[in-house]
Amino acid sequence: MNNKKLLTKVRTYATSANLGPGFDCAGMALNIYNDCSIFLNKKDSCVALKGQNISEIAKDENNLICRTIKKVLEKKYAENFAQYEKPLEIICEINVPVERGLGGSSTAVVAGLLIANKVYDLNLSIRELFNIGLEIEPHPDNIAACLAGGLVISYKSKSGNYDFEKISIKENFKILLMIPDHKVNTSKARKLIPDLVPKEDAILNIANFAILINRLKEGNLKDATDFIRDKLHQQYRRDIYPDSLKLVEELNNIYQIPAAISGSGPSALAFIPENTFETFYSQSLVKLKKKFSDFEFTLTSISNKGSYCY
Amino acid sequence: MNNKKLLTKVRTYATSANLGPGFDCAGMALNIYNDCSIFLNKKDSCVALKGQNISEIAKDENNLICRTIKKVLEKKYAENFAQYEKPLEIICEINVPVERGLGGSSTAVVAGLLIANKVYDLNLSIRELFNIGLEIEPHPDNIAACLAGGLVISYKSKSGNYDFEKISIKENFKILLMIPDHKVNTSKARKLIPDLVPKEDAILNIANFAILINRLKEGNLKDATDFIRDKLHQQYRRDIYPDSLKLVEELNNIYQIPAAISGSGPSALAFIPENTFETFYSQSLVKLKKKFSDFEFTLTSISNKGSYCY
Repeated sequence: MNNKKLLTKVRTYATSANLGPGFDCAGMALNIYNDCSIFLNKKDSCVALKGQNISEIAKDENNLICRTIKKVLEKKYAENFAQYEKPLEIICEINVPVERGLGGSSTAVVAGLLIANKVYDLNLSIRELFNIGLEIEPHPDNIAACLAGGLVISYKSKSGNYDFEKISIKENFKILLMIPDHKVNTSKARKLIPDLVPKEDAILNIANFAILINRLKEGNLKDATDFIRDKLHQQYRRDIYPDSLKLVEELNNIYQIPAAISGSGPSALAFIPENTFETFYSQSLVKLKKKFSDFEFTLTSISNKGSYCY
Repeated sequence: MNNKKLLTKVRTYATSANLGPGFDCAGMALNIYNDCSIFLNKKDSCVALKGQNISEIAKDENNLICRTIKKVLEKKYAENFAQYEKPLEIICEINVPVERGLGGSSTAVVAGLLIANKVYDLNLSIRELFNIGLEIEPHPDNIAACLAGGLVISYKSKSGNYDFEKISIKENFKILLMIPDHKVNTSKARKLIPDLVPKEDAILNIANFAILINRLKEGNLKDATDFIRDKLHQQYRRDIYPDSLKLVEELNNIYQIPAAISGSGPSALAFIPENTFETFYSQSLVKLKKKFSDFEFTLTSISNKGSYCY
C-alpha cells in the first residue's frame, strides 16, 4: 500500500438548491462533505467507497467522478485526450447522502472537475470548470454552490453560458436538515413541473426570492416564513415527498421557522435564526422528531469555502 | 383668496416599476414629484391643475385623488361615510408625466390616501393605506414605492393582503429617464402578457432580479446589463413601445449601461453608475440624444423619502 503515489485529495460539499422561491437558480453549500484521495493506479481507473447507501454507485470508469475527469480531458484535448489520460485510484469517504436532494451527484462532478484540473495541471478557471460540469450534470444551482461555497445564484448570461453570483450574507442562523429514508430521482422530479407556469406564481417567486436574499444579507429572518414560500416547484412534487412537505408546512405555519424542500427533495431544510436557538432546540425540535420519526434531523451550517484540492 | 383655509399640502413621487426582471413587484421612487395644496371648499370638491399634458385629468369628484379620498372614508365609516365628508379644493402642480410608465396615477392615489388620513385624522398605518390604495389602483409596485420611498418590493403575503419590503441600497448611481412623446395605457399593456409563461423565463427573472438586488445593496453595477434582462414583460409589449425598447437594447448592448422599460412604458430608465458619469455625459448621452431625438432625457435620482403631508 505504501508505494501508491498520492496525487491529491479533494473535499466537495453537500448543497441545497432552490431555498424555496429561488427555483432552479439558488444553491447553498453546507458543512457536510465527501473526501477523496487520488492515487496513480497501475491499469484502469477505479473508485473505492466508504459510507452509507453507496451500493448503487459505480466503482469503475462509469463512476461520475471518472466520467467527469474524462469529460474535462475531452474538452481540453479533443480527440487526443486518451494519450493524456492516467489511470487513477480514487478512494472516497462519502458523507453526503445520495439522491436525497443534497447535491450528492454534484459532489462527484465537482470532485471530477477539481481532480482533473489538479492532476493534469490544466489551470482551468472556476467558471470554465462550472460550464464543463454542466455538460455532465445540468443543475447549475448545485454545481455552482459546490464549487464556489456559500450562497450562490446561477444564471444564464447573455453569452448563452451559465454564470453564477456568490452572495455575501450575514450568517446568524443554523441550518437544520431533515432527511427521510427514501430517495427521489431528480430527473423524474423535474418532469413533474409543467413547461408553462402561471404568471402570478412567477411573480410571487420573483418577489419572495429577492426579499429572502435581502433579508439574508441584512441578517434579519423575521417573518421569513412569508417569503420563503414558493409556487413553482414544491406543490407540483407533493406526491413524491408528501411527508417532507408536511414537515415543511408545519415548520412554516406552526413553528414560524422558515423551511423549504432541499433541491428536488425528499430532504427538507430550515433556517434556525440565532435568537430562536434556545426555544427551538429545547421545545420545538423534540416535538418534531417525535412526530416525524422517519426523518433524520441534522444540524449544520453554511460552508463559505468552496470545494477544493489539498 | 386669502380666506381659504389650508388643510394640508402633500408631495407624492414618481415611481418606476419592474426595473427589468422585477416584474410586477419592484418599484423605485424618483426625485420628481407632484405637490398639492388642500383647502376646505364651500360646496363640492374640485381639483385645479398646473402642468403639462393634464387636459385629460378630471377636475371634479371623478378625479383620482377625490375618488381615493372617498374610498378611504368608505373603508373607515362604511355606509355612514357621507356624513364625515368635507368638500375640498385641491390645487396640484403636476410634474410627474401622465401615462408614461412613471407612476402618474399612483401619485394621485397616494395623494388621496395621505390627504384623507391627514384631513380626517384617521391614523391609518402606511400598510393600511397601501391596501386601500390597491382597491383603487391594483399596482402594488408603484403604490408601495410612492408611499414608502426608495426601492421597494411588494408581495402577496400569506394572509392574502399585499405587503412590501423596503430595500436599503447603496446609491452610487444616477437614474436617467428617457420619456417619449406618446402614452401607453397600462391596462391595455397588461393584457399583452399571457397568463402562462415559460418556466425557463420565470427562472431567468427570479435569478436576475435577486442578483440585481444583491448588486444594488453592494453598490456594484459591474456587468449589470446581464442581469437587468427580463423575459416576462418587455418582449411581449414591444409593439406598444418599439423605439423605447430599441433605446433600452442599445444602452445595454452597445453602451454597457443597465437599462429597462419603466413600468408598462413607454418611458425607459437607465442606471448610470458613478464611475461612468464622465464618459457617459460627455460622449454617450450626446449620441443617444441625437439618435433618439423624440425622447426627453431627464437625469434624476432615487427619492428615499416616501410621499408625505407637510
